[in-house]
Amino acid sequence: MSASKLSENAKGVYIIAATPFTDDGALDLQSVDTLTEFYLRCGVHGFTLLGMMGEAHKLTADESLAVVQRVVARAGDRQIIVGVSHAGLENVRRLSHEAMIAGASGVMVAPPPGLKGDDGVYNYYAQIFQALGPDIPVVYQDYPQTTGVYLAPQVFERLVDDFKQLVMLKHEDAPGLAKLTRVREGEKKPGRRRVSILVGNGGLYYPQEMRRGADGAMTGFAWPEMLVQVYELFAKGEAEKAEDLFDIYLPLVRHEVQPAIGLALRKEVLFRRGAIKSPKQRAPGSSLTAHDKAELDTLIKRLERRLASSGHGNKVAAE
Amino acid sequence: MSASKLSENAKGVYIIAATPFTDDGALDLQSVDTLTEFYLRCGVHGFTLLGMMGEAHKLTADESLAVVQRVVARAGDRQIIVGVSHAGLENVRRLSHEAMIAGASGVMVAPPPGLKGDDGVYNYYAQIFQALGPDIPVVYQDYPQTTGVYLAPQVFERLVDDFKQLVMLKHEDAPGLAKLTRVREGEKKPGRRRVSILVGNGGLYYPQEMRRGADGAMTGFAWPEMLVQVYELFAKGEAEKAEDLFDIYLPLVRHEVQPAIGLALRKEVLFRRGAIKSPKQRAPGSSLTAHDKAELDTLIKRLERRLASSGHGNKVAAE
Amino acid sequence: MSASKLSENAKGVYIIAATPFTDDGALDLQSVDTLTEFYLRCGVHGFTLLGMMGEAHKLTADESLAVVQRVVARAGDRQIIVGVSHAGLENVRRLSHEAMIAGASGVMVAPPPGLKGDDGVYNYYAQIFQALGPDIPVVYQDYPQTTGVYLAPQVFERLVDDFKQLVMLKHEDAPGLAKLTRVREGEKKPGRRRVSILVGNGGLYYPQEMRRGADGAMTGFAWPEMLVQVYELFAKGEAEKAEDLFDIYLPLVRHEVQPAIGLALRKEVLFRRGAIKSPKQRAPGSSLTAHDKAELDTLIKRLERRLASSGHGNKVAAE
Amino acid sequence: MSASKLSENAKGVYIIAATPFTDDGALDLQSVDTLTEFYLRCGVHGFTLLGMMGEAHKLTADESLAVVQRVVARAGDRQIIVGVSHAGLENVRRLSHEAMIAGASGVMVAPPPGLKGDDGVYNYYAQIFQALGPDIPVVYQDYPQTTGVYLAPQVFERLVDDFKQLVMLKHEDAPGLAKLTRVREGEKKPGRRRVSILVGNGGLYYPQEMRRGADGAMTGFAWPEMLVQVYELFAKGEAEKAEDLFDIYLPLVRHEVQPAIGLALRKEVLFRRGAIKSPKQRAPGSSLTAHDKAELDTLIKRLERRLASSGHGNKVAAE
Repeated sequence: MSASKLSENAKGVYIIAATPFTDDGALDLQSVDTLTEFYLRCGVHGFTLLGMMGEAHKLTADESLAVVQRVVARAGDRQIIVGVSHAGLENVRRLSHEAMIAGASGVMVAPPPGLKGDDGVYNYYAQIFQALGPDIPVVYQDYPQTTGVYLAPQVFERLVDDFKQLVMLKHEDAPGLAKLTRVREGEKKPGRRRVSILVGNGGLYYPQEMRRGADGAMTGFAWPEMLVQVYELFAKGEAEKAEDLFDIYLPLVRHEVQPAIGLALRKEVLFRRGAIKSPKQRAPGSSLTAHDKAELDTLIKRLERRLASSGHGNKVAAE
Repeated sequence: MSASKLSENAKGVYIIAATPFTDDGALDLQSVDTLTEFYLRCGVHGFTLLGMMGEAHKLTADESLAVVQRVVARAGDRQIIVGVSHAGLENVRRLSHEAMIAGASGVMVAPPPGLKGDDGVYNYYAQIFQALGPDIPVVYQDYPQTTGVYLAPQVFERLVDDFKQLVMLKHEDAPGLAKLTRVREGEKKPGRRRVSILVGNGGLYYPQEMRRGADGAMTGFAWPEMLVQVYELFAKGEAEKAEDLFDIYLPLVRHEVQPAIGLALRKEVLFRRGAIKSPKQRAPGSSLTAHDKAELDTLIKRLERRLASSGHGNKVAAE
Repeated sequence: MSASKLSENAKGVYIIAATPFTDDGALDLQSVDTLTEFYLRCGVHGFTLLGMMGEAHKLTADESLAVVQRVVARAGDRQIIVGVSHAGLENVRRLSHEAMIAGASGVMVAPPPGLKGDDGVYNYYAQIFQALGPDIPVVYQDYPQTTGVYLAPQVFERLVDDFKQLVMLKHEDAPGLAKLTRVREGEKKPGRRRVSILVGNGGLYYPQEMRRGADGAMTGFAWPEMLVQVYELFAKGEAEKAEDLFDIYLPLVRHEVQPAIGLALRKEVLFRRGAIKSPKQRAPGSSLTAHDKAELDTLIKRLERRLASSGHGNKVAAE
Repeated sequence: MSASKLSENAKGVYIIAATPFTDDGALDLQSVDTLTEFYLRCGVHGFTLLGMMGEAHKLTADESLAVVQRVVARAGDRQIIVGVSHAGLENVRRLSHEAMIAGASGVMVAPPPGLKGDDGVYNYYAQIFQALGPDIPVVYQDYPQTTGVYLAPQVFERLVDDFKQLVMLKHEDAPGLAKLTRVREGEKKPGRRRVSILVGNGGLYYPQEMRRGADGAMTGFAWPEMLVQVYELFAKGEAEKAEDLFDIYLPLVRHEVQPAIGLALRKEVLFRRGAIKSPKQRAPGSSLTAHDKAELDTLIKRLERRLASSGHGNKVAAE
């Protein structure tokens, strides 16, 4: 409950936590506990709460805070990043303060739709940093597929140079590999800080991104132990082994990145793995047909077979 | 404080109320009072609170409720419609209950982005109506320029046929004149209810829409007395006189419909007319340059000149 | 047929010409002639051909060239700008060469959708200018409502500084008034060229834009004589008179800016005024219902009444 | 050169052909020949020309026709589908006639952006079918990620019921698996035709789609032999073997589906495999950095290793 503040040195897997509900749509705090423990058993290095995947927009303010507090209570020294994107600057400030007081290590802010041009992006974040002050570490969530806002590498560099509290890039532009390389190369300029880069997009390009200088992943894949093991293999310099393991899971990584239905699949897997009591999303949400479930069965059986035949079989049973 | 429930018979001008803040961004409840009284002096028939123009997305839940309560307290028998659009169905339900308990006459719901096809729209609203029950009157806000969701006339008709609580169409598709005519013609089918249609888009096509069968306006033009007078002239069958008056204000109607800067212009006018203590928007918001203000001066002087020369001069001083 | 090249000094009204078709959808070159003459009688200072409004995307390459040649043949010394936006750079080059050889004074290029960030815009136009060479004058069409590409003033200035062939900004961002002022202020920097700015958006903010430093209009309003007279009154320093005249036409300016239906309205007016033989658009296009036509009748009668009562009555009969 | 007409019975892999250019951007017709032969050696069952991936929008009309003629000349009895999407209906008609006369088996039409509601989609295609007549087989390209137009299953069914020339669905909505299943289930209704469904999206969900009833793939993956072998294994009822093979290629399938950079990767692979003389795209196009190429090297080496160790090693050398 006394995790350190998020810094440029953050590394590893910050799992984007699902938010569990009961079958009738109530926030299920007991499942928050079991899910937190599931993630810890998988070896995650940190948590990201109330992101887009966390159905944060369907929670009340009180519920949001309750989720943060509940995870903090069990996460020990693991850092917790809380999504605080909001249309109003004052709400971003308030949510950030509440999160930090509750024990978060930092906050994550995506740009609101409609920012225009490089200066529009810079100025918005300058406002954010001034409103939050120098003591709240901030993650820039670069997800233009949803926000419609493009982050030019130069703009990110201006922000890094001007605001010390900007410590991490949540990287999920698409195409994004060249941008990642570009940011890493820009950091070679004398005097520029190297920030942490964690990658999203469901992990679809995780090994390529690690080879290009990412520090880990921030995504919600339902087999977090893979994300962790791949990270650790890269940390040991065993890139090919890491990618071998990743490729075994790739059919499911790809299956989960499907728009709209992806979250239903993730929650179904978390439910099957015993991490949450119900796969239910709050309405309006997606759900799985019998056909979808049978298809998932097939994919999971194929995964288990490949894990077994490759000698990784014991690891799937993290729970 | 005991306004009736919104019904298909709603008519007139339901002003979309601005939300006043102090210069340092705090909710200014005293200005809510003075603004409410200003609107009442202008003769509005009802209020719409917490719409897109009302900066509702920058308020906390408590602030939103406080605004509703404050307006209800002064609005007498004028009906109040409260915007309750939200990503989560449960939040729509909760906000609607709070609004109705606070004295609202009905709620307004815009579709969330991403609904797909005619059935996607129908099914979302069917869910809404089931969640809210038959006793909360609902306005469909048809504003695809922002939501990206197209409402086909047939879908609206299916909803009207299936859900009695759908009593009003907030009409602001663009182009929208043909749709308005189409909906009115569809209502001639035996057994179909005629619903209220109030028009938005800043009132830019108000006379054309009234001639095509609209029942009034729901918009936030900063000279609400024009909206009211035009409505009353139409009600008396004096369409040409109504449009003559409208045309005098048209340069300012058009000026206020500018994206992004429009709200700054409206709040500036409300401020100049003494209705609110500060034209400030909550960050991030637009603001006016000295150039913008001088331009507004010119336009207002031109308005006053034309009002004077047309014999309407006395009416601008509603405050 | 020997018009000069377009330069930074371009001023006045460059009418965006409609493209006339016969009732069965064939290109109507005789109506191109009568329309050209109609525009000349209205006093336009130049022409813009094959713009978005000109249904250029529905023409074959041969038809496009035929339209340019036909207008050139009758336009005398009036300058002609030809829209050459295309997905492929080589096609832009080819179309530009064909247009210039046919007698155009310059070409207009809108950015393709998908350009990212300030550098994305700069680099695209740098490619264009390099492909076209220094001898083809170019107009930047800034219409983000359709292209989705934002032009930051700084980017425009970099382009103006680096490429002498960039001589004009077709200004139709919305909101755009502040950008226009910003560009004009940026030109006060020693050494920077002042470029021509013609305004679009159907002329909806024409007087405001002229007061802020625009050099005229490039739009397709179906009463071009108003655009010309307003320009000339501004040129004589009679801003208030100019705006008085504009305001008389504003109800129709506003009526024509309706998305989708706007072109149908313009062609109907041009047809009624005898400028073209058929109001037909090529499929898929919009068309007017009996209701729409009656509404237009009403608006035109109102216009004629106001023109008559203001002493401008004789001017409507430009044809 | 005398391929049959496209019908509901179409099955297998219709490769979306890249369009080869020389290093200086000229259309490279000799590479069209070698590429056609490469595809034939890979065993493709048909071709799709001038699709979005084929850079069709950067070709002149003459070039487009030349590409069709050149492929027809070598494709023997393989069916050829030609993309004819265009803003103007008359252009769709003309391009379709030219393609069919040149030897195409059918044409493919994507909806233009801006169609509204279920009826908007139905009516557009009804216009298309009427313009093309009953003798030109048509493929509906359902790719809302680019067009922004959603195709409801019911609308597709209405079109299938009403227009016999609609013989194929190019399926690439995302999420799309449920829609595919829904269309197949709808076909069980007595009297409804079963149409061919070929899947796109780079093949990312190819095995899942085959299991759900797809008839094959229409995509441009640079190892078409995999697409063919997977199809053939499914045809033999060996779904698990098919998916085993697919999974070996999945890292590259996924790599190629990257927006913007994907085509550069495909052309690079086709170039390395000797199918085309240059990987160049026409400007403006994407290109690969040294970093990108090294990354591709790594992925290809990994592919070759996995193919070898799985006993498929010999098959990569299709050329």
